[in-house]
Amino acid sequence: MVASLDGYAGFKHFLISSPAEYVAHVETNRPEKLNAFFEDMWLELGQIFRKLSHDPNVRAVIFSAVGERAFTAGLDVQAASQGGVLSQDGVSDGSRFATRVRRHIYEFQDSVGAIEKCEKPVIVVMHGISIGLAIDLSCCADIRICSKDTKFSVKEVDIGLAADIGTLSRLPKIVGNLSWVKEVCLSARFFDADEAFSVGFVSRVLENKAKAIETATKIATLIASKSPVAVQGTKDILNHSRDNSVAESLRYTAVWNSAMLQSNDVATAMLSGIKKTKPRFEKL
Amino acid sequence: MVASLDGYAGFKHFLISSPAEYVAHVETNRPEKLNAFFEDMWLELGQIFRKLSHDPNVRAVIFSAVGERAFTAGLDVQAASQGGVLSQDGVSDGSRFATRVRRHIYEFQDSVGAIEKCEKPVIVVMHGISIGLAIDLSCCADIRICSKDTKFSVKEVDIGLAADIGTLSRLPKIVGNLSWVKEVCLSARFFDADEAFSVGFVSRVLENKAKAIETATKIATLIASKSPVAVQGTKDILNHSRDNSVAESLRYTAVWNSAMLQSNDVATAMLSGIKKTKPRFEKL
Amino acid sequence: MVASLDGYAGFKHFLISSPAEYVAHVETNRPEKLNAFFEDMWLELGQIFRKLSHDPNVRAVIFSAVGERAFTAGLDVQAASQGGVLSQDGVSDGSRFATRVRRHIYEFQDSVGAIEKCEKPVIVVMHGISIGLAIDLSCCADIRICSKDTKFSVKEVDIGLAADIGTLSRLPKIVGNLSWVKEVCLSARFFDADEAFSVGFVSRVLENKAKAIETATKIATLIASKSPVAVQGTKDILNHSRDNSVAESLRYTAVWNSAMLQSNDVATAMLSGIKKTKPRFEKL
Amino acid sequence: MVASLDGYAGFKHFLISSPAEYVAHVETNRPEKLNAFFEDMWLELGQIFRKLSHDPNVRAVIFSAVGERAFTAGLDVQAASQGGVLSQDGVSDGSRFATRVRRHIYEFQDSVGAIEKCEKPVIVVMHGISIGLAIDLSCCADIRICSKDTKFSVKEVDIGLAADIGTLSRLPKIVGNLSWVKEVCLSARFFDADEAFSVGFVSRVLENKAKAIETATKIATLIASKSPVAVQGTKDILNHSRDNSVAESLRYTAVWNSAMLQSNDVATAMLSGIKKTKPRFEKL
Amino acid sequence: MVASLDGYAGFKHFLISSPAEYVAHVETNRPEKLNAFFEDMWLELGQIFRKLSHDPNVRAVIFSAVGERAFTAGLDVQAASQGGVLSQDGVSDGSRFATRVRRHIYEFQDSVGAIEKCEKPVIVVMHGISIGLAIDLSCCADIRICSKDTKFSVKEVDIGLAADIGTLSRLPKIVGNLSWVKEVCLSARFFDADEAFSVGFVSRVLENKAKAIETATKIATLIASKSPVAVQGTKDILNHSRDNSVAESLRYTAVWNSAMLQSNDVATAMLSGIKKTKPRFEKL
Amino acid sequence: MVASLDGYAGFKHFLISSPAEYVAHVETNRPEKLNAFFEDMWLELGQIFRKLSHDPNVRAVIFSAVGERAFTAGLDVQAASQGGVLSQDGVSDGSRFATRVRRHIYEFQDSVGAIEKCEKPVIVVMHGISIGLAIDLSCCADIRICSKDTKFSVKEVDIGLAADIGTLSRLPKIVGNLSWVKEVCLSARFFDADEAFSVGFVSRVLENKAKAIETATKIATLIASKSPVAVQGTKDILNHSRDNSVAESLRYTAVWNSAMLQSNDVATAMLSGIKKTKPRFEKL
Repeated sequence: MVASLDGYAGFKHFLISSPAEYVAHVETNRPEKLNAFFEDMWLELGQIFRKLSHDPNVRAVIFSAVGERAFTAGLDVQAASQGGVLSQDGVSDGSRFATRVRRHIYEFQDSVGAIEKCEKPVIVVMHGISIGLAIDLSCCADIRICSKDTKFSVKEVDIGLAADIGTLSRLPKIVGNLSWVKEVCLSARFFDADEAFSVGFVSRVLENKAKAIETATKIATLIASKSPVAVQGTKDILNHSRDNSVAESLRYTAVWNSAMLQSNDVATAMLSGIKKTKPRFEKL
Repeated sequence: MVASLDGYAGFKHFLISSPAEYVAHVETNRPEKLNAFFEDMWLELGQIFRKLSHDPNVRAVIFSAVGERAFTAGLDVQAASQGGVLSQDGVSDGSRFATRVRRHIYEFQDSVGAIEKCEKPVIVVMHGISIGLAIDLSCCADIRICSKDTKFSVKEVDIGLAADIGTLSRLPKIVGNLSWVKEVCLSARFFDADEAFSVGFVSRVLENKAKAIETATKIATLIASKSPVAVQGTKDILNHSRDNSVAESLRYTAVWNSAMLQSNDVATAMLSGIKKTKPRFEKL
Repeated sequence: MVASLDGYAGFKHFLISSPAEYVAHVETNRPEKLNAFFEDMWLELGQIFRKLSHDPNVRAVIFSAVGERAFTAGLDVQAASQGGVLSQDGVSDGSRFATRVRRHIYEFQDSVGAIEKCEKPVIVVMHGISIGLAIDLSCCADIRICSKDTKFSVKEVDIGLAADIGTLSRLPKIVGNLSWVKEVCLSARFFDADEAFSVGFVSRVLENKAKAIETATKIATLIASKSPVAVQGTKDILNHSRDNSVAESLRYTAVWNSAMLQSNDVATAMLSGIKKTKPRFEKL
Repeated sequence: MVASLDGYAGFKHFLISSPAEYVAHVETNRPEKLNAFFEDMWLELGQIFRKLSHDPNVRAVIFSAVGERAFTAGLDVQAASQGGVLSQDGVSDGSRFATRVRRHIYEFQDSVGAIEKCEKPVIVVMHGISIGLAIDLSCCADIRICSKDTKFSVKEVDIGLAADIGTLSRLPKIVGNLSWVKEVCLSARFFDADEAFSVGFVSRVLENKAKAIETATKIATLIASKSPVAVQGTKDILNHSRDNSVAESLRYTAVWNSAMLQSNDVATAMLSGIKKTKPRFEKL
Repeated sequence: MVASLDGYAGFKHFLISSPAEYVAHVETNRPEKLNAFFEDMWLELGQIFRKLSHDPNVRAVIFSAVGERAFTAGLDVQAASQGGVLSQDGVSDGSRFATRVRRHIYEFQDSVGAIEKCEKPVIVVMHGISIGLAIDLSCCADIRICSKDTKFSVKEVDIGLAADIGTLSRLPKIVGNLSWVKEVCLSARFFDADEAFSVGFVSRVLENKAKAIETATKIATLIASKSPVAVQGTKDILNHSRDNSVAESLRYTAVWNSAMLQSNDVATAMLSGIKKTKPRFEKL
Repeated sequence: MVASLDGYAGFKHFLISSPAEYVAHVETNRPEKLNAFFEDMWLELGQIFRKLSHDPNVRAVIFSAVGERAFTAGLDVQAASQGGVLSQDGVSDGSRFATRVRRHIYEFQDSVGAIEKCEKPVIVVMHGISIGLAIDLSCCADIRICSKDTKFSVKEVDIGLAADIGTLSRLPKIVGNLSWVKEVCLSARFFDADEAFSVGFVSRVLENKAKAIETATKIATLIASKSPVAVQGTKDILNHSRDNSVAESLRYTAVWNSAMLQSNDVATAMLSGIKKTKPRFEKL
C-alpha cells in the first residue's frame, strides 16, 4: 500500500507518495495535457526536489508521470507562446530581450537541476511520449528506466531552437556514443526503448509502465535499505567525478570520506553482515 | 541528380557536390593510392571545411572517399619520408628537430580539426580500408556511419609513433568503453564494422558503400530541413559540453540561446508544425 | 614456459613472472583468503608497479590473481577492523580522526594508482569473486578482461561507506552508461561477466580463467612486439586525454611527439613493414 | 539627498536607499553589536542582492555598514554558539554532524555569494573593524575601498577553523601576492588600510568613512551613467574570466557579445559622444 | 642603425625593421588617425605576427606605433560604422545578426591573438593615447612598457559594449588587483603610466617614447642573445601555466623539456659561461 | 635556545632544529659550494619535508640556508654534467634520451614539490645569491621573506633551458604582475630584494639574514600557537583554490570543513579568547 508522505500535501501539479519505507514517489500530474510543463510546474518541481534533498524520511526518489500516454510531451508550447518570455512586447532592443531570455533560462535550468542536486538518488521512469523536456529532466536523474512503449525525441531543433535546459550539457556525459548523441540531437528523430537501452541512455526496459514502476520501486527500496551516509556520499562523489579530472576527484573523495567515515553505519553494516540481519541506520 | 556546389571548383584533391538542397558532399579523390593523404591534401581539406563553415548554401556536409577499396589508408608514408618533416637533414640538434616537428603537427591538427570546427554538422561515411588518419578524420565528424566491409585500425603504433592528429585526444570522448579504446590504440589491431558499431564508434552500419552514402544523404537532408539556427547551435553547444563541466556548459548554453532565440525560425517552425507544412528558413 | 623476472624475487604477496619476452605477469597470491587485501599487500603492489614502470625489460603487464575462486574479495575487513585506521582509539576529536583517515586514504589511493601511472600498459584479468577493491584495482588497468564466471560488485555501500580508492572517480570515465554506473554503485548489486561486457566495463569475456590469461598473454605479447616508444606514448596521451579538453590534449600530444618522434623505431618499424620481418626495438 | 528605493521597505537588518539615480546603497544596520552577523541577517542579505540583481532601477550598488566603529566584527559567535550548527546535540555520529555542517555552509556560501552573482557592480566600503566575515563579504564585491582607520583580519584560524564562506577561495584570485595572502590567512594577524592598498586588496583608501562613501557614490554614479548592457556584460565576463582559461573566456565573450551588441545603447552612446550630451539608456 | 627585415616589405599598415640582430620592430603606421585600427589593419597584424613566429631570423619582437600622439586610439569607429558588422542591413533576424557578429569577433580575436601565439617574446611599447584596442593588443604581449605620457582607458563601456577582443579575458590574469581591474573596466576611466606601473599592468615607465623604445630594444637584444630554445620554451610554458593547474603545468613542462634539452645550446651556453665569451646559438 | 628535533638526526645535507615549540627549522648545509644542489640533496630534501608533513611535533617550518653568501646558487652544474642525465652516453636515440630526461624531471619535481605538499606552513628565508633552483624552491613555500642583500635570478635561460622544476608553473600564480614575471624569466636578469618586495614575490624584506630568520621564527611561532586543525586546513584549501574555480573551491571547502569542524579546537580557542589565556591544542 502506498502511503502519503508528510509535508508534501500543498503541491498542485505533482502527486507525492511513499510506496516503501524511506522511498518517495513524485508523479507529474497533468495527464490530460500529456504532462506538458508550464512555468508554475517546473518551479514547483524544483521546490519539491529541494525539500526531498534534506528530508530525513527519504533515502531514494522515484520520478514518473500520471496516465498511460506520456511521461511528458515537453514544454507546453501554447502556454509558452502566450505572453511568454519569447514575446518581444515591451522590449526595446535585442540586448534587453536577450537579458530577459537569459535570466529565464537560468531559472528554468535551476528548477530542473534540483533533481540532480537532490542529495538522494533519483530513479526516473519514462513511458509513452517522452520528448523535449523529458530528456532534460531524465538526464538529471541518477538512474533511467523506461517501458517498452516509450518514444523519445530530443525535439528542440524541430521548434527552431537548441535544447537549453540541460540535454546538450548532460547527454554526452551520460551516453558513451557521441555519434548517436549528435544524430538524435541534430535530427530530432524519434528513438524507441530498445535503442535507448542499446546506447545506454536507459539502463533497463520493462514490459509496461506498471512493471517499470515496480522495478524502480524495488531498486529504490534496495538503495533505501543501505546506509544513507554511504549512498548519499556515493551520489555526490559520482557527480563530482563527472566534471573533474581523476586526480581532483580522488582528492575530493579522500576529504569527503575523512568526514563521512565517522558514522555508526560502518559498524552497523558490518555487524549486520556477520549476523545476517537487516541493518537499521539512523536518519540523515 | 547531384549538382555541383558553387565556389568549390578550384580544389584538386577533393570532389565537392550537392546531392540535395543545402547539403554538401566532400569526397577524397585519390582512389588509385587508396586515398592516402599527403600534405597538400590535408591543407586543402582544411580550406574546404573552413569555407563550408560559413557558406550560407550549406546546412549539412557528407564526407566520404572515391573508389571501392578505401576511405583512406592513412598517411602516404612514402611521400612523408621523402624530404619530409621526419628527415633530420639540415637540423643541428634534437631541440631544433623537435621544434620543426611540433610546428608541423600543429598545422596538421589544425587542418584536420577544421572538420570539427565547421559550424555545419558533418557526417562521415567510411568504407573499406579505414586506418590511421581515417580514425583521426572521422573522430572530427559529428556522425560516423560505415559500410559492412570497413576495416578499421588505429594504425600508428605499427609505424613507431603515437597517433598525434587527434585520435588519442578524441576517441576516449566519443566511445564510452575505455578498455576497448586502449586495446585498439595500443595494439593497432584491426576491427570491423560490427565491432565499431557495438562499441559506439559508428552509429550505423550499412550493407555497402552506396547504401551508406544514401543513408548519410537522408540524414543530411533531414538535418538540412531544420532551422539552421537550431542545428548549428546544437552542434556548437554539444562540442562545448564535451570539454566543460555541466555547470559551465549550462551557463554557455544560456548565453548562446539568449542570442539565438531571436530568430524568426521559432515562429516559422511552430507555424509549420500547426499547418503541417514544410518550413522554409532563412539562410545562415 | 614461464620464466621468472629478474629483480622481483623479494616480494611476499605477489608472484611475478614473465610468460613471454617483455611481458610481466603479476599475480596476487593469497588464494586461501580469496585474495583479500590488507595494508602490507597494497603497499607492496604499489612498489611492484613503480618498479615495472621503469624496467626496460618490461613492455606490457598482466595482472591477475592466484586460485580459482576469486580475483579479490576486496579489503580484508577483519584485518582492517583490528587496530586499523577506523579505530577511534587515542584520537582526541573528530578532526584529528578525519586527518588520520585522509592521510590513510591518500596512501592507499597512491598505491593502487601506481597501476595507472605505470608507463607500460596493464591488462587485468578478473575471475570469480571480484568485488570492492577489485573494481578500484581494475579501473586503474588499461585493458579489462574476465572469465565467464566473474561476479562483480561495487560493494562499498554495503559496508556503510562510499568507495574511496578510485572506483567512483574512474568508473564514469571508463564506462559510457552513467545510469548503469550509478545503479551498480548505489545499490552494490552483483553483475556478471556478460553485463560487464555489454556496458563496456570489460572488453572481452573468456570461457574460464585459463583462457582469459591466455588471451591476455596474447594481447600483451602483441603490444610488447611494437615499438615501446609508440606504445608508452599512446598510454600516456590517452590518460592525459581522459582528464583534459580536446584542445589541451592536442597541444600535449604535439609536444610529446616532438620529443618522441626522434626514435629509431619509426625507421625500424617501416623497414620491417616493407621487408615483412619482425622488428626489434631498443629497450626503453 | 538620499531617496528611499522602492520595494525594499520590508528588510529588517539592512537599510536600503538610493543616493543617486540608478544607484542603490545597502547598509548593515546592527552598529550596537559591531555589525556582527547572525543567520537571519545573512539570509536577508542574500535576498536583497538577488532582488537588486534584476531590479531595472538599479545599475550599481554600494555596500557598507552603519556606525563608526565597524564594517563588521564578523560572525556573532555568541549567537552561533547557542543551539547553533556546531552543537552536537541530537546528532548520532560524526557523519551526520558533518552532513548538517556541510548543508549549513552551502546555505551560508550561497547567501554571501549573492553579492558576487548580483548582475550589477557592487562597491564595498569598509571602515573600522573589518574582520572574519568582513573579508568573505568584501571578496564578493567588485570594487573594494576603505577608510584609513580600517583594521582587517582573516580572523578564522583564531577561533579554530579555516575560513569557509569564501575568503580562501576568492582572496588568492583577487590579490596577486600569494605570500602575503598566506601570511594573513595562516596567522590571522591584523593589517591596516595602507597594507591592504599596497597589496591590492582595496583599490582606494580614503580619509574617513564619510569620504569613502562619497567616493563610492561617485564611482557608482559614474558606472550607473554608462550603458547598463555594457556594464553588466563587463561584470559577467570578468567573473567568467577569473575561473576559465583565456581560450574559454574568449569564446564565451564572443557568444555573449553576439547577443548583447543588439542594443540601442551603442548608437545612443556614440551619438552622445559626438554631440557631447549625456546619453540616456533604456532600463535593464 | 636600423636595418630592414627581409620578407616584410609587402605590408601596408605597419613598418617592420630590425634594430638589432635577431630583433624585429613592428610599428603601427597610421599616425594621422591616432593609429586607430580598421579591419584590414588587424588582419595584416595577424599575418605579420604569424610570420614572425616561425622566422628563424627573429628572436624577440618590439611592437609600438608611429607618431607622438597615440599608441592607438582604438577601433576606428567611423570606419566600423560604415556598412560594418554592426549594421543590421540585410539581416533577417536577431539570430542571424548574432551569428555574423560572432564570426566577426572570432576573426578579430584570432588576429590580435597572433601576438600572444607568436613563439618569440613580444615587448609592447605604449605612449600617448592608448585606449580601447590598445589594452587588448598590449595584453597579448609578454612585456608591457610605456612612456610617462601614456593615457590608458579600457574604453569599451563608453561606446555601449563589453570589451570583446581580449581585455576582459586577459587583464585579470595579468594584473593581480581585481578591484582595480574591475574599476577601470566598469568605469572606462583614464589611468596614467604611474598607476599602470603601481598595479603591475606595465613593468617599466620611461621618460618618453624614445627612451621607452630604447629600453625595449635593450631588453629585446638581451633576450635575443640567449638560447632561442630556452627563450621560446620559457614563453610557451609560461602561457600554458597561466591557463592550467600547477600539476598540469609541471607535467607539460617535463614533456616539453624532455624534447628541448636535446639542444647544443646547453653546452654552448655553459662553455660561454666558463670562457666568459658571448655564445652563438643556431637559428630556430 | 635552539633544540634539536627528534627523528631528524640521520640527514646529511641539511641541519634540522627546533627554535621554538612546534617549529622546525631546515637549513641547507653546503655553504662552501654556495649551497648548490646535487641529486642526493634534493632527494633528501623531499624525504625531510614528507616526514615533517605528518610529524605531530611540528606545526610550522622555516627553510633557509647555512652561511652568509647564498641561499643557493642553484643546481651544481659541475656535478650535473658528470655522467648526469644530460649525457647522451649509452642512449640509442632521441626518444630514449627524452624518456630518461622526463623521468628525471618528474623525480626532481616531486622532491621539490614536497615543500608545497607538506601539510604544515613553510616559511622560506632567502639571502645572498638566490638563483635558479632558489626560485623553484621558494615558489613551493607558503611565505617568502628575504634579507636586503638577496640577489635573485630565474637563471635557467642562461644555461640554455627553460626552468623545469616549477618556477614557470608557480611564479605566475604567486606574483600578480605577468609583465614582470615574463621579463625576469625570459631575460634571466638579476633583481634585488626591493624589487622582489614591490612586485609581491616576497612579502617582507629584513635588514640582514639574522633579522630575517628572527622574523620568520616569530611568524612561525605565531602560526604554531594557533589550532593546527585550522592552520593546516587553511593551507590545504588555499592551495586547492589556486588551481580551481571559485565554485569548485567553495564546494571543496564545505566538504573539508564538514570534517574539520569536529575538533575540540573551536571550543578551546573560543574559551581562551574569553579568558584571555593562551590556548593549548592537541597534536595533529
